[in-house]
Amino acid sequence: MGVSGAGENATCKAFAAHDASGVFSEIELQRRALLADDVSISILYSGVCHSDAHTVLSEWGPIPYPMVPGHEIVGRVDAVGSAVTKFKVGDIGAVGTFVDQCDSCEFCKNDLTALCTQMTATYNSKSRREGEPECCKITQGGYASKIVTREANVFQVPEALLPQLEKVAPLLCAGITTYFPIVHYVGEDLTGLHVGVMGFGGLGHLAIKFAKAMGARVTVFSRSEQKRAGAMECGADEYVASADDAQMKPKARSVDVMINTVPFLIDLNPYFALVKKNGKFIQLSVPEKPMSIHMGMIVMNQLQFCGSLVGGLKVTEKMLALCAEKNIVPMCEVVEVGRVNEAFKRMIAGDVKYRFVLDLTKWTD
Amino acid sequence: MGVSGAGENATCKAFAAHDASGVFSEIELQRRALLADDVSISILYSGVCHSDAHTVLSEWGPIPYPMVPGHEIVGRVDAVGSAVTKFKVGDIGAVGTFVDQCDSCEFCKNDLTALCTQMTATYNSKSRREGEPECCKITQGGYASKIVTREANVFQVPEALLPQLEKVAPLLCAGITTYFPIVHYVGEDLTGLHVGVMGFGGLGHLAIKFAKAMGARVTVFSRSEQKRAGAMECGADEYVASADDAQMKPKARSVDVMINTVPFLIDLNPYFALVKKNGKFIQLSVPEKPMSIHMGMIVMNQLQFCGSLVGGLKVTEKMLALCAEKNIVPMCEVVEVGRVNEAFKRMIAGDVKYRFVLDLTKWTD
Repeated sequence: MGVSGAGENATCKAFAAHDASGVFSEIELQRRALLADDVSISILYSGVCHSDAHTVLSEWGPIPYPMVPGHEIVGRVDAVGSAVTKFKVGDIGAVGTFVDQCDSCEFCKNDLTALCTQMTATYNSKSRREGEPECCKITQGGYASKIVTREANVFQVPEALLPQLEKVAPLLCAGITTYFPIVHYVGEDLTGLHVGVMGFGGLGHLAIKFAKAMGARVTVFSRSEQKRAGAMECGADEYVASADDAQMKPKARSVDVMINTVPFLIDLNPYFALVKKNGKFIQLSVPEKPMSIHMGMIVMNQLQFCGSLVGGLKVTEKMLALCAEKNIVPMCEVVEVGRVNEAFKRMIAGDVKYRFVLDLTKWTD
Repeated sequence: MGVSGAGENATCKAFAAHDASGVFSEIELQRRALLADDVSISILYSGVCHSDAHTVLSEWGPIPYPMVPGHEIVGRVDAVGSAVTKFKVGDIGAVGTFVDQCDSCEFCKNDLTALCTQMTATYNSKSRREGEPECCKITQGGYASKIVTREANVFQVPEALLPQLEKVAPLLCAGITTYFPIVHYVGEDLTGLHVGVMGFGGLGHLAIKFAKAMGARVTVFSRSEQKRAGAMECGADEYVASADDAQMKPKARSVDVMINTVPFLIDLNPYFALVKKNGKFIQLSVPEKPMSIHMGMIVMNQLQFCGSLVGGLKVTEKMLALCAEKNIVPMCEVVEVGRVNEAFKRMIAGDVKYRFVLDLTKWTD
């Protein structure tokens, strides 16, 4: 554990990208001295997310290096600021995709925290905290032995999930990314509804689990037969290889809610034809190039094409409670943090079932 | 008035297109003998809608000719079937875009009548009525002196609107096309909301009137300065010439609900930037070619891109009640039915403020 305590910055270990090559190497990272409402967390597990790749590879624009990504964080509280009430040293805490927000805008008030213009992302974001030292002005993420952050943005992990902490990490981004749009656009009870999930990977497999837990019938749409067994094992009721017209045709106008997790450019129009009139199509991914959409599909069938980013603080707590109640956890491959470069490459290649989690316990436990 | 009565088909006058040239000439048209729940209406006014053009010009696919379009119909009941209870001879009745539906599917039950797979459009649709004679198997619309149709699909016109019947006609399509998505996707009270209206024509000018009547602040977005005076006269609070960046920029993220009435292909992405995060973009038009949409605009801002066709029976009644209460009527150019060819050409050229209505009273009054 690094040195920590009010008045003094803490030093911790981290894996940072130093350029757009996507290669990480170990650095010493500064974390700010605890502010009154800060919690210091020794990170135990940190998920590896596609956003990490987009960021450190400069695919979303130039970034300042070195950069430590990671926004699926679970760890043990090792120090608390003087005003902290929710955590004590030794508690387990989790951090997701953002660490600060204004708390007063219409979005914060409506638990749409991710939309707050003052929202500070967990990494590669300008800290807006008063008293932030110069070395910490740009936030750095969870591929590190420690994070110091606002208590308000640290989640308590329900007791039932404590025995499988490594699997909790991906819930903080992949989990809330799939859970939030379902409850926001559809509701908490999906009984009687047919949910379609396009793509079967980190997001897709969690979408299946959430939709099933909420009572839906779930069909997975993936290009080939390759992922059929995995999807069925994950709880899907049905699997459709979308390249096969004979499988696609009978599904026309059968889906109440489609969730698109496919990260690359595909023709969405055949998928619109699967959605019932007045149905919802939830878009989670952002391919670089624009998508070509036939307005007839949308207008004539009264479809709602809904974008969604990530949920707010309260809905994340709700998700964690549901995960505890229904034992919803992702399928993960846990690798020791020193193997971050291997994991990162394999994630980009799509070679993971279905989410990598870095194990940092050799640094922090 | 044509001959009418149970057991005998009725003959009436009509203007029909005979090929895809868009030229109409007068024909004798058969209407079915009244079924028990039918109402026969002597048509007084019939609106001219862009859908009429798309259909008779075969732009939406090949059609059987001769074809009589028109689905914005107001007239006087001249006969009623034995089971009719809502109308008596002499009453005013109105007919919109569809004349029949199954009444039992989930869409009919939820007043989303237009989505019913058994829905019969007012013209160019296969009649599903039992007892429909061979001559009337394909529905024919309102450019005619008479229509015989189900009582259930005939609307009563509120008393306050009776003195301006000619202006009621366009409410049956242009009106409900703009009113329905507002109440369906947003609500009946728009107090405090900023509504954007893209395009200022038949639909656009009604969208302004409805949004204003429901309490919104309304900004019209139209390419040039040309329509500024008209839009302001129509009740808009503000007008933005969208080709002028200096006018567009200050409107970034200012609109709660955008309604796109522009019938042709434009780049929607700059308009998405005008919508507040978590805002709604309502698409009413169906350009022939697909539209190119940046998913970043939709996903990162959590926008909902909502298609809408036309409202059901109950919401149309509600709209007529609001129009009566708030004196909402379209601005029309009323032309004698013999001038249908001139009106049709000018509508296609966009040369109308803002909706043509055919006056058929010389035939029927």
